[in-house]
Amino acid sequence: MLTEQTKILIVGCGLIGGSYAMGLSAKGYDVTAIDQSPEAIEFGLAQGFFRRGYTEPLPEVLHKAEFVVMGLYPTAMLDWLRANQQHFAPGTLITDVSGVKSNIVDTAQEFLRPDVEFIGSHPMAGKETSGIFNADYHIFAAANFIITPTEKNTPEAIATVRQLAQILEFKTIRELNIRQHDQMIGFLSQLTHAIAVSLMTCNDDEELGFFTGDSFRDLTRIARINDVMWSELFLLNRDILIENIDCFSAELMKLRSLLQAGDRERLQKMFQKSTARRSQFDVAKAAPADKK
Amino acid sequence: MLTEQTKILIVGCGLIGGSYAMGLSAKGYDVTAIDQSPEAIEFGLAQGFFRRGYTEPLPEVLHKAEFVVMGLYPTAMLDWLRANQQHFAPGTLITDVSGVKSNIVDTAQEFLRPDVEFIGSHPMAGKETSGIFNADYHIFAAANFIITPTEKNTPEAIATVRQLAQILEFKTIRELNIRQHDQMIGFLSQLTHAIAVSLMTCNDDEELGFFTGDSFRDLTRIARINDVMWSELFLLNRDILIENIDCFSAELMKLRSLLQAGDRERLQKMFQKSTARRSQFDVAKAAPADKK
Repeated sequence: MLTEQTKILIVGCGLIGGSYAMGLSAKGYDVTAIDQSPEAIEFGLAQGFFRRGYTEPLPEVLHKAEFVVMGLYPTAMLDWLRANQQHFAPGTLITDVSGVKSNIVDTAQEFLRPDVEFIGSHPMAGKETSGIFNADYHIFAAANFIITPTEKNTPEAIATVRQLAQILEFKTIRELNIRQHDQMIGFLSQLTHAIAVSLMTCNDDEELGFFTGDSFRDLTRIARINDVMWSELFLLNRDILIENIDCFSAELMKLRSLLQAGDRERLQKMFQKSTARRSQFDVAKAAPADKK
Repeated sequence: MLTEQTKILIVGCGLIGGSYAMGLSAKGYDVTAIDQSPEAIEFGLAQGFFRRGYTEPLPEVLHKAEFVVMGLYPTAMLDWLRANQQHFAPGTLITDVSGVKSNIVDTAQEFLRPDVEFIGSHPMAGKETSGIFNADYHIFAAANFIITPTEKNTPEAIATVRQLAQILEFKTIRELNIRQHDQMIGFLSQLTHAIAVSLMTCNDDEELGFFTGDSFRDLTRIARINDVMWSELFLLNRDILIENIDCFSAELMKLRSLLQAGDRERLQKMFQKSTARRSQFDVAKAAPADKK
């Protein structure tokens, strides 16, 4: 388990890595950071987000680490681990922050040394801004934390990342397997971003900006999107996302058919179903947080 | 123009009609209301939203009215006007609050007596709750007010409904023709509701409620929908809404193809376009309000 003596290393201090560092340090933990940007390291040191910061993966720094959080984009993380894993001490525990787990967790567990342990986890949090300069661990208070253990993970590793999420004050902590996680993310997060982007790019009328009401603004808020990261996440979860797009499109085509046929009664039924379901979601959100 | 002596009549005191009554009375105007619900009339009188309230369209009440706001659903409004127009005094000005204008404004102008004037207008405001019991004219402070004059309307009528919107403190006031209005609404409001409903009804996994983040909540907030009113609005604007659904679907299919082909570069370009456009929308919203 994590104690104030545990040497925690965060590799990649962007918005999420930086917010982890900020929260852990605020709670008295011993955090070291690596980020290739000198500005990020300088900022984090000045803010007290970590005690030591480096722009290179120095072997002696990696060797001292007991618990490592990889804050890099998924494929950059795999490259980094491939290049640097030999410097870790035996028994090192590594987790990540990736938004997709297929092709990441299994891949890392496959190529990593058998005497270090990789366990996937996903903080379902973010902001429309990026970088350590916008870090704020309070964004986790409204967020879910998902742990995606595989048969290669130990109960100790699961307990440690659960403790990490508790320290950072995530609202709920859940365990899912990789497939469950990626299906959930494919629907709730990736499909919604695909819809928002398509809605934003399908109409060229520039005048429309003057008339946008809350509905359109709500649906397109997430159309401001980090193009590098989201392309990567979409492609890593391609098959599941395509399934979700097809499922949603079929439902929209059903609505279109009812409209075309002038079938008021079945349109109303669809709206009633939608209203009832959305109300259930609000109830689910209002339920007591699962922090056990 | 409206003065404190003008006899204003509001027919149909739901959320919007009730909020109009509330705002007009708060500014010292003389408001009378008709609503078939005794509870609504009782509530509005008790709250001071209007000075006189009736549950029937009494001929002498209609005869006294100089400016009439029809707060009923679109087709109910047409039925009501057909049944009661003979009681209005010559020169009466009538406007509405309907969310669709084709098949409404032109129809009303067609069958109404030549000595009364109907001018379409649309307060682009609402809440997830309904009825006069939830009335609040402050919802207009963040909203657009659209006037849809036709060649049959007088400059005086346009100026009067513009004044109405100013009294109610709408953020912006704009004029559009009927086709422009319905195309704008078909895209910004109806397409977004069609998407939200389809997203809400396309997946049966009840567990998902536990994981919903802000993205999904934002996209489905409007999936709680008044099924009677929205079915009516969708069907009144059927052709335009279908065009918009098709345009959006084509864009989503484009994204799906890029994903299928693993075309990271063009996916990123699509995301960049989406991000740039959404930023423009925020700029447009932040521009000074057009209240002239």
